[in-house]
Amino acid sequence: MKVVSELAPARAELEKLARPLGFVPTMGALHAGHLRLVEAARETCKSVAVSLFVNPMQFGPQEDFERYPRDVESDSEKLAQAGIDLLFAPETAAIYPPDFTTFVDVGKLGTRFEGAARPTHFRGVATVVAKLLNIVRPDVLFVGQKDAQQTAVLTKLVEDLNFTTRVEIVETVREPDGLALSSRNAYLSGEERAAAPTLHAALQTMLKEIRAGKTVEEAREAAAAVLSPRARLEYLNLVDARTFSRLQTLRAPAFLIGAARFGRTRLLDNLWIWK
Amino acid sequence: MKVVSELAPARAELEKLARPLGFVPTMGALHAGHLRLVEAARETCKSVAVSLFVNPMQFGPQEDFERYPRDVESDSEKLAQAGIDLLFAPETAAIYPPDFTTFVDVGKLGTRFEGAARPTHFRGVATVVAKLLNIVRPDVLFVGQKDAQQTAVLTKLVEDLNFTTRVEIVETVREPDGLALSSRNAYLSGEERAAAPTLHAALQTMLKEIRAGKTVEEAREAAAAVLSPRARLEYLNLVDARTFSRLQTLRAPAFLIGAARFGRTRLLDNLWIWK
Repeated sequence: MKVVSELAPARAELEKLARPLGFVPTMGALHAGHLRLVEAARETCKSVAVSLFVNPMQFGPQEDFERYPRDVESDSEKLAQAGIDLLFAPETAAIYPPDFTTFVDVGKLGTRFEGAARPTHFRGVATVVAKLLNIVRPDVLFVGQKDAQQTAVLTKLVEDLNFTTRVEIVETVREPDGLALSSRNAYLSGEERAAAPTLHAALQTMLKEIRAGKTVEEAREAAAAVLSPRARLEYLNLVDARTFSRLQTLRAPAFLIGAARFGRTRLLDNLWIWK
Repeated sequence: MKVVSELAPARAELEKLARPLGFVPTMGALHAGHLRLVEAARETCKSVAVSLFVNPMQFGPQEDFERYPRDVESDSEKLAQAGIDLLFAPETAAIYPPDFTTFVDVGKLGTRFEGAARPTHFRGVATVVAKLLNIVRPDVLFVGQKDAQQTAVLTKLVEDLNFTTRVEIVETVREPDGLALSSRNAYLSGEERAAAPTLHAALQTMLKEIRAGKTVEEAREAAAAVLSPRARLEYLNLVDARTFSRLQTLRAPAFLIGAARFGRTRLLDNLWIWK
């Protein structure tokens, strides 16, 4: 595994890699969910590149950019063991030089749900991924289902700006008790951690109720009853998988999405309904 | 010369072209200025692709999108004669499908001067060129000095989003009386056409005065006196060539930029000061 932090050497190394080239963009703090993305990339591509960059542009001013977990050494080891070909780990100034001003915005989709809670978040995501696609030029981009709205934003980015990269969504990896893996799980106290799997349980209940013929409204009530009293629910919704507009009846591909706070930590989860 | 209007066949044809590939994006209504861009591309590249697309996204709601001059047949003939390899002439729906929502914005630079007069103009330019760069994947992008702020916007787009394309600015072609060639010159009445070259004369006067040690303010007054009374002056300014922020003293690379209305027609001109 080559490790490169500067753009020009990264491009030179990337040009040597066999095609198809799979690419997994990450913010580090790697867990089994990220490694599942790498595994999926290795299964279908001849080479795999991973980026490790905590992207300041996708954090709001009051958010956890500074305290976001960072452990480059342990991340590098995991990726070397996972058998990737190239790790691109740039400094912030290499991606955002002082006179950087451009942004990419996918429009309405980026203003819903997570975009409403975090107004500049998806603009930051779309911008950094547009840059990374131009630096890495991968054939396939691997993204995790866990960040469902992000998968829709990146699919839209690629389609609307005519990138030739294909977007592949990889299923969420969960703890045995159902909690979706997330770097932010590290923030949870013992009690919050014990309560956190009820978000997944709530989504499962909601889907069962919808499939049983209940309205979204009725199903949401049943789901909320399953959620731990420790959780501060933000939303539970059935949405179109591409536009994230709300659905009143099940029509695949869809996501059942949920967000809730456990203490200071905001967790997301979803069920992907593809048929 | 191949002529292609659909994206997939365009990509297939473009892949066959020898590198380096030069690219000249146009909105048609081709004149000698465009053909000079093609000539510059042929001088330094092994293949040349031209796009012909009147981009609705860069026109404001009150602007001349509908009446913008269109003559695809005559344009094709000129380009075939100029010896280009590929003409990409897509329909609007191929570039902007019904669910298209994404935009690219270069920030502050795009809000100054032409961006102040036409608030969504440079967002439209940056978005369509980002798309065209991903479709055509050229080694060199040729843009005309005449649209000076556009050259800065596209340079910024390429740098900030890490496109590997190099931007080459090609000098303005002028009528014998100094009027910069522009598709919009076709709108001018006889009297307006006679008055129009005074915009270029005013810029020349302004540069002479600045070089003689006058302040920008003094030089602007001298320049305004040269302008035809038929002209409604919008601005005359000395700006940094990359940021388009105003300069009080000459510091290359810079542009001396001017905009004025002749009847209903808004004309631009500039002098490029590279040393």
